[in-house]
Amino acid sequence: MLISSPALRTFTQNIFLAMACSESHATLAADVLLKSDLRGIDSHGVARLSGYVRLWEKQRINTSPDIKIIHQTPTTALIDGDAGLGLVVAPFAMQVAIEKAEKYGSGWVSVRNSNHFGIAGYHALMAVKKDMIGFAMTNASPLVAPTFANERLLGTNPMCYAFPAGKYPPVVVDMATSAAANGKLEIAQRGGKQVPEGWIQDKQGNITTDPHALKSGGALLPLGGDREHGSHKGFGLSATVDILSGVLSGAGYGPWVPPFVAFLEPPVNPPGHGIGHFLGAMRVDGFRPAEEFKADMDIWISRFKSAATIDPNQKVIIPGEPELEAEMDRTKNGIPLVDAVVNDLNDLAFKFGLEPL
Amino acid sequence: MLISSPALRTFTQNIFLAMACSESHATLAADVLLKSDLRGIDSHGVARLSGYVRLWEKQRINTSPDIKIIHQTPTTALIDGDAGLGLVVAPFAMQVAIEKAEKYGSGWVSVRNSNHFGIAGYHALMAVKKDMIGFAMTNASPLVAPTFANERLLGTNPMCYAFPAGKYPPVVVDMATSAAANGKLEIAQRGGKQVPEGWIQDKQGNITTDPHALKSGGALLPLGGDREHGSHKGFGLSATVDILSGVLSGAGYGPWVPPFVAFLEPPVNPPGHGIGHFLGAMRVDGFRPAEEFKADMDIWISRFKSAATIDPNQKVIIPGEPELEAEMDRTKNGIPLVDAVVNDLNDLAFKFGLEPL
Repeated sequence: MLISSPALRTFTQNIFLAMACSESHATLAADVLLKSDLRGIDSHGVARLSGYVRLWEKQRINTSPDIKIIHQTPTTALIDGDAGLGLVVAPFAMQVAIEKAEKYGSGWVSVRNSNHFGIAGYHALMAVKKDMIGFAMTNASPLVAPTFANERLLGTNPMCYAFPAGKYPPVVVDMATSAAANGKLEIAQRGGKQVPEGWIQDKQGNITTDPHALKSGGALLPLGGDREHGSHKGFGLSATVDILSGVLSGAGYGPWVPPFVAFLEPPVNPPGHGIGHFLGAMRVDGFRPAEEFKADMDIWISRFKSAATIDPNQKVIIPGEPELEAEMDRTKNGIPLVDAVVNDLNDLAFKFGLEPL
Repeated sequence: MLISSPALRTFTQNIFLAMACSESHATLAADVLLKSDLRGIDSHGVARLSGYVRLWEKQRINTSPDIKIIHQTPTTALIDGDAGLGLVVAPFAMQVAIEKAEKYGSGWVSVRNSNHFGIAGYHALMAVKKDMIGFAMTNASPLVAPTFANERLLGTNPMCYAFPAGKYPPVVVDMATSAAANGKLEIAQRGGKQVPEGWIQDKQGNITTDPHALKSGGALLPLGGDREHGSHKGFGLSATVDILSGVLSGAGYGPWVPPFVAFLEPPVNPPGHGIGHFLGAMRVDGFRPAEEFKADMDIWISRFKSAATIDPNQKVIIPGEPELEAEMDRTKNGIPLVDAVVNDLNDLAFKFGLEPL
């Protein structure tokens, strides 16, 4: 099914309103989810809407949160999300970071007691619009085994860095710190395909190509796959995200990050509160005039785009380029939804007495 | 040869003094190099000393630099290193970042017109001593091909994040963003061994296990190795380092980072000046009380150290732990130097009329 983005946006807003979100929170939360669908990151968009609803029904998401700054300096802040939707809490926190950057050159916010925040790129791009460099990270429920471990201790913990450019679109590095994200396993499962070695290990810790091994007690692997190929680096990056998002904020961290599915109970006596995020903004003109920086970004992008390639039909891809192409295409032509997602959304509509898609 | 660290330190200081460094610069530069040898990162310590000397002889390193803040806000600064030793310029820049963090919560410095800065961990750990989180990155001469490219456009561009802990030593993530660093290839070359697939490609862009392929016109690969295993993520991280260090500062970037070997000439008409670094410091207590953070860091470290493992004889390694173990061992028992390095150092001693090792 192909659906226009305004229609899907209105539908999504109405679901959030039915969850007792305020008008402004419903609009914002729908905007974050839609951005993911528009940018082609189908795993983080409306496909997750029913998951948010189930957690709200279990009172693990608070749709009327009192989002508070707990402590701050001119350029740093700790925010408590009051168990709100990460889709709302993270943009609030990024706005605080941007306001600090406007005054003092940079702003950094660590967030505790939040929930899944959608795509990191949404938040980082808020800074780019102000000629700032945007940073966004979040920890997540444990699915990844550190190098040498036979235990899930880290989430896919994404990190995002976004940079404004001039005539070219922004460079947006937005990546899970695991070798592959869960969504890619699901695609292989649906297609009955094997996955490459280095993505997952089975319950015994053996390397496997079976995409079902994660569900059978295995684990995702850090970027790098194994020690020989640098998985200790992927582990180090994931640890960095976990510490900046979780330990620095007083959120859950490591194995104590609450699962973002309603059928798994949160850990007992965790050392912190909810999921944690880390967001930052730095003014480009805190270093050099923004126009000079953007002119150099254009040279950078142009040079990499025109690099000599191995296959003449496969150019170097600038980070953020495929997502922007998807956004332009889907804004114009609509967003494709698979049947499972359409059914899921229509079940929600039925539950709340709303019009189906 | 095993040499005591005080003896190697004095020797190294004397070489820097012979290069017309001031007393304080010679002491600092030797401290940075020694830290690398002590921490077991042999590729970045005194093994590089003759390289610095050759670049100084070619007047590509200025040992009396006028290191200047070109522009600043309360929490950001652009520094010009005046072609000085990165070993001196980077600690200067980190000191500026720390002083800004002391006043405003965080401090961020982008540096242009510098040279190789040794190990990133040295600089990031300066912040940790002040109960701050330290960040250190640098771009470097092009050796790495982006995903799909058959051209060297990026350096091994390391990123380092360092976090203070309580009873445990700091967590220090200090990693090249390539799958493997050049030093590992050299070890394989000396030993006549093949390297794993995913480290390098040959001149035609084919995957190869021949460690000599880099020297024969091939390239190192980004962390991940190939697209299927996430090399676009390694490329994205390396691009982030290049932009924060090079584009943001007005240093060379991409293929225009000057080579850090005297036998290769710098690029003609580069868009920026020298090598670039990016350094940052954030006060932990800008977010939550340092003692609380450190207590949680201890729980984090302890939990990961005691993780269930695949092999009962191979525990999970906390980032920074092996380097600290090497530092304790080598401080006590001395620093091992291979013959090639001893000969190299003694050649320098002869050149400058100093006592050999």
